[in-house]
Amino acid sequence: MFPQGFSAQVARCGLKNNGDPELAVVRSQTPCRAAGVFTTNRVAAAPVRYCQALLARANDLVTAVVINSKNANAVTGPQGDRDCARLASLVDDGDVLTMSTGVIGQPMPMAVYEKGLQELQEADAELLARAMMTTDTHSKVVSREFQGTRWLGVAKGAGMIHPDMATLLALVVTDADIPAAELQQALQEANHLSFQCITVDGDTSTNDSLLVLANGVSGKAPAGWTQVLQEVLIELARMVAFDGEGASHRVTLHVSGVESDAAARTLGRVVLTSPLVKTAIAGKDANWGRILAAAGRSGVAFAPEQAALWWNDLQLLEAGAPTNPGSAAESKAVESPEVELRLVLGQGLGKATLWSCDLTHEYVSINGDYRT
Amino acid sequence: MFPQGFSAQVARCGLKNNGDPELAVVRSQTPCRAAGVFTTNRVAAAPVRYCQALLARANDLVTAVVINSKNANAVTGPQGDRDCARLASLVDDGDVLTMSTGVIGQPMPMAVYEKGLQELQEADAELLARAMMTTDTHSKVVSREFQGTRWLGVAKGAGMIHPDMATLLALVVTDADIPAAELQQALQEANHLSFQCITVDGDTSTNDSLLVLANGVSGKAPAGWTQVLQEVLIELARMVAFDGEGASHRVTLHVSGVESDAAARTLGRVVLTSPLVKTAIAGKDANWGRILAAAGRSGVAFAPEQAALWWNDLQLLEAGAPTNPGSAAESKAVESPEVELRLVLGQGLGKATLWSCDLTHEYVSINGDYRT
Repeated sequence: MFPQGFSAQVARCGLKNNGDPELAVVRSQTPCRAAGVFTTNRVAAAPVRYCQALLARANDLVTAVVINSKNANAVTGPQGDRDCARLASLVDDGDVLTMSTGVIGQPMPMAVYEKGLQELQEADAELLARAMMTTDTHSKVVSREFQGTRWLGVAKGAGMIHPDMATLLALVVTDADIPAAELQQALQEANHLSFQCITVDGDTSTNDSLLVLANGVSGKAPAGWTQVLQEVLIELARMVAFDGEGASHRVTLHVSGVESDAAARTLGRVVLTSPLVKTAIAGKDANWGRILAAAGRSGVAFAPEQAALWWNDLQLLEAGAPTNPGSAAESKAVESPEVELRLVLGQGLGKATLWSCDLTHEYVSINGDYRT
Repeated sequence: MFPQGFSAQVARCGLKNNGDPELAVVRSQTPCRAAGVFTTNRVAAAPVRYCQALLARANDLVTAVVINSKNANAVTGPQGDRDCARLASLVDDGDVLTMSTGVIGQPMPMAVYEKGLQELQEADAELLARAMMTTDTHSKVVSREFQGTRWLGVAKGAGMIHPDMATLLALVVTDADIPAAELQQALQEANHLSFQCITVDGDTSTNDSLLVLANGVSGKAPAGWTQVLQEVLIELARMVAFDGEGASHRVTLHVSGVESDAAARTLGRVVLTSPLVKTAIAGKDANWGRILAAAGRSGVAFAPEQAALWWNDLQLLEAGAPTNPGSAAESKAVESPEVELRLVLGQGLGKATLWSCDLTHEYVSINGDYRT
């Protein structure tokens, strides 16, 4: 159910083989405050630069977001900027944000999208989420009701996922009544605990965009709303991480015992990006030596001789030395498609929880012929 | 042919299914000057720490190197240090360097290796190189003769390959007569142009060791010897990169137009580590947008609107915009298993050449069940 005053429309443009829509418009009946965080990639797509400029001058006048999949509008030269502005202008005369995802470096099929914009149909959140999807295997929708306010989040992302910031596209809309500056700050903090804590493959996208729109229609700004925003973003981020391209295991990593939370996140990202760690998990091999080796190249200080590691409650490393629990115990520990790793590295108070997936044959297949 | 005064012996310990030896000893008839560069991984294996300590106190007294494969002696606690020292002591009473490669986190099968040391047999360079191999598909041997001096290099490495420094094990022996300090400096410089310029998967090993031994038996130190050392190391490094686990394409990347050679190397490493770039190459898909996207997250400054890219002589990007050469031309360009990428990023004078391979299903298979 959409927050009050919001609605969505989608169009099927015929670019996806499965009949899913490729175009979506999310509208608010009144202008919204808006906040955003974006890819730090130097090669930022046209819609990213467009949104950044728009939010800098008009973050409480946003009336809509237009989203297209199948084309990222990235590395498309000046024509890409013109296409992006035109798409926004066709939605309405107000300030319209844009998000694009899909193949990089190909001109936007503007005739197709323009025709789609003339054939929009009302859509629920599920269909909105499907319109954003590329290699995602399922849609990602999270909703919350909190003290008279409603929150709805949708996201897409399955590959090219890594901080900062880490998702292709995510949009949260709410009817809560929140000043724009508070919204931006809360978004950045929540982003650190959510999309900054997931990785699929270490590749950051040209198009990463996380937007929040608050139209204030509920008239309420309940204390604790920042917590709700965090919950919505963490849940969306986990969905993205666990739906990593070709994933067969869901991986949660708890890091503790280093000097700061930021250091714990840094170390965790390196571990969860390691192809050797990820292929071992895919192969159901509790090859924890690779986890330590990846931690060791993270640049984060720790004492290897104090390290301890658990793989789904089985302790494999204690005080920097193997526990050698035996192959029967190991086989049991790696049985589950849910992998929970706990890495304790010493006495520091820094800690973090991160989410990822394994690296499988299917990832290679998906990305070997993505454009065909 | 070995440089004067050097010989090698190997033993088959029965740990490898293919009958290759797992143990090698390289001896010099006179004490050698020695130099080394090692993994920067915080989780350094016992033999790495052992070699570092030995070279710090005795870099012109080295008489031998003992190398074992199938066990890395990494994350093995205090017992690992004792095993390493014992292996060295069993070779001879002098200062003996050690190198280990194989699985991380399992105790050394010392009884097996000790028995092997009693059954050593004379070996040529090819067999020496085979004794070091793990998942390598072929041995890596390079030799040079230069103005009365001989140089022989052997290396192993196929996965867990990334700067700094980037290989599992490499050993160069020469009968040139070179002061130890010069040897160390020349090794570090040559390493920057060779093993620092290759990557397979972004994972750095706990065991990376590159050693050079010079016994001076030829009595000569011809001008230009540093160039020979560079050639030997570059050739070995290329062999390692092109024999990456499961590789089906050999990838050479030329980066230019950034502010320094170091920046060019940094950017090149990010591009060649990207799973999305590597899977596109595996799938014969000239998905150059991923190359730009990876460059964009490298932290190196460049102007995307000036970027140009060639894939085996076909220009795909010019002044930051696609050239759209058409699918027939693209199919032809990606046909070859030799992929030469040229990325020109603006006006800077910094440049680098790097080597790598693609990421295939086979990589996932190899690393999914490495320990079994």
